[in-house]
Amino acid sequence: MTGKVDYLRLAKEFGVQLITDEDLGRLRELAGDVHPLLRRGYFYAHRDLNQIIERQAGGGRWALYAGRGPSGDLHIGHLIPWMLAKWFVDRFGVEFFFELTDDEKFLVKEGYSLEDTNRLAYENALDLIALGFDPKHLHLIIDTEDISLLYGIAVRIGKHLTLSTLKHTFGFTDSTNVGAAFFPTLEIAMAFLPSRVSGAEVPVLIPTAIDQDPYFRLGRDVAPLLGYPKPATIYSKFLPGLTGEDKMSASNPESSIYITDDDKAVRRKVMNAFTGGQATVEEQRRLGGNPDACPVYKYHLLFQDSDETVRRIYDDCRGGRLLCGECKLMLHERLSKFMVQHREAREKARERIGEYRIAAKLS
Amino acid sequence: MTGKVDYLRLAKEFGVQLITDEDLGRLRELAGDVHPLLRRGYFYAHRDLNQIIERQAGGGRWALYAGRGPSGDLHIGHLIPWMLAKWFVDRFGVEFFFELTDDEKFLVKEGYSLEDTNRLAYENALDLIALGFDPKHLHLIIDTEDISLLYGIAVRIGKHLTLSTLKHTFGFTDSTNVGAAFFPTLEIAMAFLPSRVSGAEVPVLIPTAIDQDPYFRLGRDVAPLLGYPKPATIYSKFLPGLTGEDKMSASNPESSIYITDDDKAVRRKVMNAFTGGQATVEEQRRLGGNPDACPVYKYHLLFQDSDETVRRIYDDCRGGRLLCGECKLMLHERLSKFMVQHREAREKARERIGEYRIAAKLS
Repeated sequence: MTGKVDYLRLAKEFGVQLITDEDLGRLRELAGDVHPLLRRGYFYAHRDLNQIIERQAGGGRWALYAGRGPSGDLHIGHLIPWMLAKWFVDRFGVEFFFELTDDEKFLVKEGYSLEDTNRLAYENALDLIALGFDPKHLHLIIDTEDISLLYGIAVRIGKHLTLSTLKHTFGFTDSTNVGAAFFPTLEIAMAFLPSRVSGAEVPVLIPTAIDQDPYFRLGRDVAPLLGYPKPATIYSKFLPGLTGEDKMSASNPESSIYITDDDKAVRRKVMNAFTGGQATVEEQRRLGGNPDACPVYKYHLLFQDSDETVRRIYDDCRGGRLLCGECKLMLHERLSKFMVQHREAREKARERIGEYRIAAKLS
Repeated sequence: MTGKVDYLRLAKEFGVQLITDEDLGRLRELAGDVHPLLRRGYFYAHRDLNQIIERQAGGGRWALYAGRGPSGDLHIGHLIPWMLAKWFVDRFGVEFFFELTDDEKFLVKEGYSLEDTNRLAYENALDLIALGFDPKHLHLIIDTEDISLLYGIAVRIGKHLTLSTLKHTFGFTDSTNVGAAFFPTLEIAMAFLPSRVSGAEVPVLIPTAIDQDPYFRLGRDVAPLLGYPKPATIYSKFLPGLTGEDKMSASNPESSIYITDDDKAVRRKVMNAFTGGQATVEEQRRLGGNPDACPVYKYHLLFQDSDETVRRIYDDCRGGRLLCGECKLMLHERLSKFMVQHREAREKARERIGEYRIAAKLS
């Protein structure tokens, strides 16, 4: 899976490790299999993933941590790290701590009230729960409601972070509002929450996109100062835009498939997608397409369960046997099925959401 | 009560109003009397005190708000705004919201752990309760424990405050830690808490020292943006140091009387105090002393209940009839009695402190 973003250079810039075949082999030994998102290289880099793997091998405790700035435009790409988290939960029975940052979204985005972002936190949580988590393994933290769990840790973190450090790390300026400037302490605090609530050393593994590294690099710097284990991370590439961009663009709704899209919209977006195909059917038959530069193929990689299907699509495209139209229909069929299931599961989650709130479990 | 600090200039610089005889007259009409700290001019300036007075006259609801950065070196000067608050509570039956900022003390001071400042919050609360408040009228907020009450308001405030504004207001720099930079939003949030918890418009009156004005000026700027009433303030002068400084100095423990001082220490500090007296007994008899420049006299002003006693001390000093030694003995007697009562009341408060926690009342 390549593209115009130079992911190797990004990994090098951030100073993170690449996931090796050896890492995947070790994971397969322990889990019995390896999730497609890992074996197909969408998650490709990490910090201390191998330490988590070895901890698992030794029977040690660890947890997963991810988060979301609640908004109304959740797209299916947002679900991808959560799908990987689900795999870890299923294979290893670990707990998954999930932060809904209604505060941050309000602080950094215009046009949302705090009531809006809080309501959207619950809406977005439904999409997470819909992936099949049970309340025993998934713990929801909503910042404005569960702040009492995080603030004590955040204050300790905040004492170690000067405004200067935050400016350099996140590009804040003197015009940044102080709520937004303080927020990273809460995102880092979450990484220490599993240790805090259990009173034991529980390192976290954070599945996220590579550009979130600065938060957790800061968290790794601070962890030893506070006596917490350093958070480990596992980094994905960016979801490509269906319209051909390297990274989905929020300003172009045709570039991605939103959870709220109806089947007609899904079909339109897929059928209008940019591809790696040739200009004419004749050329495609003769020269074959280029799946490595094709967002439709990349979506197949992310959403097709079967390696056999993916390999056949790749080979048939290269060999000129598969035309873009057919390939798009296959993707639409897959996504359509996914969306129907997701919508159903999402509505069922609505009545059970209270069971996932960490506050309810701790009180 | 004058000194080298030019309090009129300070009031002008901050742009606050002076408390007038008319204000005091109006207060006397409503309350039946006026507290010595007001009628002797120790509290001398304000913002919107008259609006609070008129609100009281009209039967409207309002509340008191004060706070404390918990520390181990509480001195009797710290009690003074709380004594004034007690008078307002007694006369008007209003509620008093009190913030113990264990977070801030930890963030701005070296050598304290958050556990230390939290423990000291409870210790300092005993000194407040010891002044005679009952749980119906005094509500304690401990930042790290009651953050869930404040954070939602603080986030809304924080969105309106840039790092630049905070730097200019409080002298923060890029080396300031982000926890300390965020803290003012919590101090301001407290001013809106009475409205928030009651769901009605409940303006607060904040008795504090004049140098705290920047916090509440910011709070007054933000209030209308969030739909809260502007906080009103009532400002005191600084407590003079017994050793002759204008403002008590933390680096000179002889300059003030700590709650933890035993009677021997109280006596030593009072008897060694700087005074406005003459160099010799003969000169004092002949020329009289200068009570206006005398910290011992200022302590009499703060701690003697009877106006008659205070007037006699003033006149006898001026007239050369009262020597510094006798005057100091009178002050020691008064303070000693106060300290004995305070220590007793403080220990009794220990078992009841839970009743004053706002969290216990709201849950």
